[in-house]
Amino acid sequence: MKLILAVVQDKDTNRLTDALREGNYKTTKLSSTGGFLKEGNTTLMIGCEDKDVDGALDIIRNNCSQREQMVAPISPMGGNADSYIPRPIEVEVGGATVFVLPVESFFQF
Amino acid sequence: MKLILAVVQDKDTNRLTDALREGNYKTTKLSSTGGFLKEGNTTLMIGCEDKDVDGALDIIRNNCSQREQMVAPISPMGGNADSYIPRPIEVEVGGATVFVLPVESFFQF
Amino acid sequence: MKLILAVVQDKDTNRLTDALREGNYKTTKLSSTGGFLKEGNTTLMIGCEDKDVDGALDIIRNNCSQREQMVAPISPMGGNADSYIPRPIEVEVGGATVFVLPVESFFQF
Ligand code: NI
Ligand code: NI
Ligand code: NI
Repeated sequence: MKLILAVVQDKDTNRLTDALREGNYKTTKLSSTGGFLKEGNTTLMIGCEDKDVDGALDIIRNNCSQREQMVAPISPMGGNADSYIPRPIEVEVGGATVFVLPVESFFQF
Repeated sequence: MKLILAVVQDKDTNRLTDALREGNYKTTKLSSTGGFLKEGNTTLMIGCEDKDVDGALDIIRNNCSQREQMVAPISPMGGNADSYIPRPIEVEVGGATVFVLPVESFFQF
Repeated sequence: MKLILAVVQDKDTNRLTDALREGNYKTTKLSSTGGFLKEGNTTLMIGCEDKDVDGALDIIRNNCSQREQMVAPISPMGGNADSYIPRPIEVEVGGATVFVLPVESFFQF
């Protein structure tokens, strides 16, 4: 048995928990902030058998990897609206920090 | 030393933390949601000596085991109130998912 | 690799996370309450190499140790304001409860 702690961005959390549920993984969400990733993250606890750890890691990698995204920039305040041409910029989003912890024993009551 | 992580239903949390305190266990509550149990759960961290793990598990089992409860059903909206006879139904409540983790070292400052 | 779980008082959290960041430690904050310390605490997860555990413990000890603080007492309601001389009293603040957990594997995606 292992306990996987995965810190992921809020925006990836729903897609990840859906994918984990489809893979028959059980998860608990802890509200968390800051640090390993930029503000707005969630820590998922995923308990699974040793043989299922790699499958969980694949799902996390597929749904949360750091990637680039084009976003429309905010218009400059007080700028000359006529001459301002907004140009999409590239930002890094996503990312996951994952700890796999040994479990000594596991119970369900 | 062990760290017990127990995911329990919100409705059982106060009774459990009271019982753990009476047993001289120290707990910290993490706010959590979903997954291992239905929505509305709490994750308790309980640090204790190896010899006290079984006692903590007994307290969790006694206060949080899954059980059946009779609840009054919601009256159907727009139903014929005269002919409607509410009948209590049985639902599953409670339950606990518990991980016992090894602790390499422990400090209090 | 180790995962340090530190339960600290809210009032010490910002100073601690700043000090950890300056020491190049990455942290994630979990919102928590009660138990190991008086109400109003935060649980920090700090992932680090085995060789860096002692440095993290030093930073936690330096920023969160239990200590005495003089505070102005609340004036008694309805007391005789003329004869009441408020006298600062000493209270215990701070404190940290720290678990160092073994990590089986660690990933960043
Ligand atoms: Ni195992
Ligand atoms: Ni031990
Ligand atoms: Ni290691």
